[in-house]
Amino acid sequence: MNKKIQIGLLGLGTVGSGVLETLLKKDCGITIKKIADKDTDKIKQYAELSPDIFTIDAYELINDPEISIIVELIGGVNPAFDFIKAAIKNKKHIVTANKELIAKHGKELFSLAEENNVVILYEAAVGGGIPIIMPLRQSLAGNKITQIAGILNGTTNYILTKMEQEGSDFEDVLKEAQRLGYAEADPAGDVKGHDAAYKISILASLAFDKNVDISSVYVEGIDKISLIDIQCADEFGYKIKLIGLVRCDDDETLDIRVHPMLVSKNHPISRIDDVLNAVVIEGEPVSRVMFSGPGAGKFPTASSVIGDILALANEICITDYPLPMMRYDEHHKRKNAVIKDIDETENKYYIRVTTTNVPGVIGDLGLICGNNGINLYSIIQKKVLSDGSAKIVLLTESAKEKSVRKAVEEISKRPTTKTVNNLLRVMD
Amino acid sequence: MNKKIQIGLLGLGTVGSGVLETLLKKDCGITIKKIADKDTDKIKQYAELSPDIFTIDAYELINDPEISIIVELIGGVNPAFDFIKAAIKNKKHIVTANKELIAKHGKELFSLAEENNVVILYEAAVGGGIPIIMPLRQSLAGNKITQIAGILNGTTNYILTKMEQEGSDFEDVLKEAQRLGYAEADPAGDVKGHDAAYKISILASLAFDKNVDISSVYVEGIDKISLIDIQCADEFGYKIKLIGLVRCDDDETLDIRVHPMLVSKNHPISRIDDVLNAVVIEGEPVSRVMFSGPGAGKFPTASSVIGDILALANEICITDYPLPMMRYDEHHKRKNAVIKDIDETENKYYIRVTTTNVPGVIGDLGLICGNNGINLYSIIQKKVLSDGSAKIVLLTESAKEKSVRKAVEEISKRPTTKTVNNLLRVMD
Repeated sequence: MNKKIQIGLLGLGTVGSGVLETLLKKDCGITIKKIADKDTDKIKQYAELSPDIFTIDAYELINDPEISIIVELIGGVNPAFDFIKAAIKNKKHIVTANKELIAKHGKELFSLAEENNVVILYEAAVGGGIPIIMPLRQSLAGNKITQIAGILNGTTNYILTKMEQEGSDFEDVLKEAQRLGYAEADPAGDVKGHDAAYKISILASLAFDKNVDISSVYVEGIDKISLIDIQCADEFGYKIKLIGLVRCDDDETLDIRVHPMLVSKNHPISRIDDVLNAVVIEGEPVSRVMFSGPGAGKFPTASSVIGDILALANEICITDYPLPMMRYDEHHKRKNAVIKDIDETENKYYIRVTTTNVPGVIGDLGLICGNNGINLYSIIQKKVLSDGSAKIVLLTESAKEKSVRKAVEEISKRPTTKTVNNLLRVMD
Repeated sequence: MNKKIQIGLLGLGTVGSGVLETLLKKDCGITIKKIADKDTDKIKQYAELSPDIFTIDAYELINDPEISIIVELIGGVNPAFDFIKAAIKNKKHIVTANKELIAKHGKELFSLAEENNVVILYEAAVGGGIPIIMPLRQSLAGNKITQIAGILNGTTNYILTKMEQEGSDFEDVLKEAQRLGYAEADPAGDVKGHDAAYKISILASLAFDKNVDISSVYVEGIDKISLIDIQCADEFGYKIKLIGLVRCDDDETLDIRVHPMLVSKNHPISRIDDVLNAVVIEGEPVSRVMFSGPGAGKFPTASSVIGDILALANEICITDYPLPMMRYDEHHKRKNAVIKDIDETENKYYIRVTTTNVPGVIGDLGLICGNNGINLYSIIQKKVLSDGSAKIVLLTESAKEKSVRKAVEEISKRPTTKTVNNLLRVMD
């Protein structure tokens, strides 16, 4: 590089320290001018650095005229949102791993960046260390993307994998994951699917060039998945995975959602286990490509952050302005996505029901589905339980969600039905 | 885009027609000014295009001052090499899918491009539709790459998959693959590993920033893999795949080679079947990421070619020069790689031997390995054949190739040895 690029690092948490430690080992023409963190204790482990470069005041970085890139690794909306806006107004380029902020306020931030002739890079916001944002913007730019499906959250994938491999219940595996540091003390953001929703909406915005209102994305977590569901799925040739999914329909509405799915063992994404993530992109002319790897973690995420920093630095060390490769999305022209209601989506379904063990039950269930226009692929009585009730699993052909929900409501009202235990969607 | 970028297309074969047909469907600010192919019949299927844009003379494109990007899809060294050199001297940027040319003459071409302030993009040269070159140069640029392992040839992967799944012999599957168009009439380039060698040497040059002399790369094809090897591998928990592999050792020598390997079924690359390709990149800090998808084919390869064209066009439509993101490898500074001799590499091995069925044979084989400093992981007599001979498989711990070859030579000289059927390397 022709000139030294100076950066400011906001946040010295897990990812921030991964970035710092990697950059300290690497001579790549990048100078860390200042690091801000509200916890001054964190700086003590970096004895090799001059204490002057640490501050608790983010604005020392944001207002420093020598810093050209602000690397935001605080996470969450506040105060990161204010910091980034202020930095952009000061003509700083932004590198961030903040999926929540990009998903919730990307529209405003990208417009502000465009007005100020700076760029925001966020490779680390989706898929941790897996390169996915840049490939989607560049190598795959000639495609009409038709679908993106991903395992976008490592915590839930770890839990589902352990339930399957060890035959354990959700609550037990969650506790173990918390003990090992794979799940947070408050696991709701992961377990209920919100983290995955941020990520699929970021991918959707990029792939379909539309603003996605995150509050309109249908989200269902894995907390209602029981070991019995995983075992039944296995018998039918499926694994259960938390999937972020987006498709663009012919009428230009976006079918975007996050929910657990039975994924066929023949689908490559079914083999992505433990804390790994994967993103499968389908489009014309490429057909289907998959990217997989570590979806989180100190060092893998640092890899993506540093990739963005180097890409930016390489551009601005030669010319202060153009950066066309990073900014050829013209965000101010982006339209708001019309998002399809979950009731209007079409899927194959898995329905698990507990009934009294009397003759005619299976016929009744089949009849209700038929009356609602739902073709069944399979209906199987799995076993009679010790209390005399029967466990029945239905697999449907492709049907409208609205019809399936209506059928499930009717099934639940049958006097022979004890419980409709679960309703899940299926991906072949 | 602010101005129309005009391109010239050299070669209207499989990939060329995929690029043309995709661009015709897409309004992306790219104009195809001229198309050259020596076969004028090919143009007849594009009735919607003015006949004026076709020519048999490549130099009409190369010398056209309005064309800023030459897209070379002829393949092979001659005449593509001359065309590209002439185009670069005329200050044209190059997009190519030509793995053989980049592998054999990349050093000269990149230097020439640097002198002329133009860039050469070649995403489609490795992995067909899978984005791999750009992610390696950008998103993963902050990594110290430690190893790249890939299934880089679809034809051989198809043959090995069919042998495994259908229990067929190599020759039968090859004939079927030729009938289906998955293998060429002269299959040597694929089957003997040369195609994969071009690709791994391109990846190695990029990942380790060194010039790789392709003639120094050790190459072994799949033509000596028999169904028995695939079945034995399966019993031990392995699949046989043709692997392109490169590692950079601590002494900066490159361990680069292409050969079939027993790949553990736990390794994600073992699950890449049929004509699919995959590349697994390991590095610090990212740990391990995998990219998989269609490694060849008209439309997938067109996806990568068009990704490169658009990336280039987006740069040059704003500014005629910088393009730093695409050219921050400073090729003139690249050193020539010192390539490790295959004898000096270390691997785990699979050795299959046919012996006479007499007492003490297994002890003898174990002794020979021990005398050569090779620890055995397993030695198993698979079965006694109808002619009274015994089929024995040895799996070794990590050992030096030189020692293993010496042991194999000694084994082959034992009076009890009928044949050493195969020697393969193992990847866990």
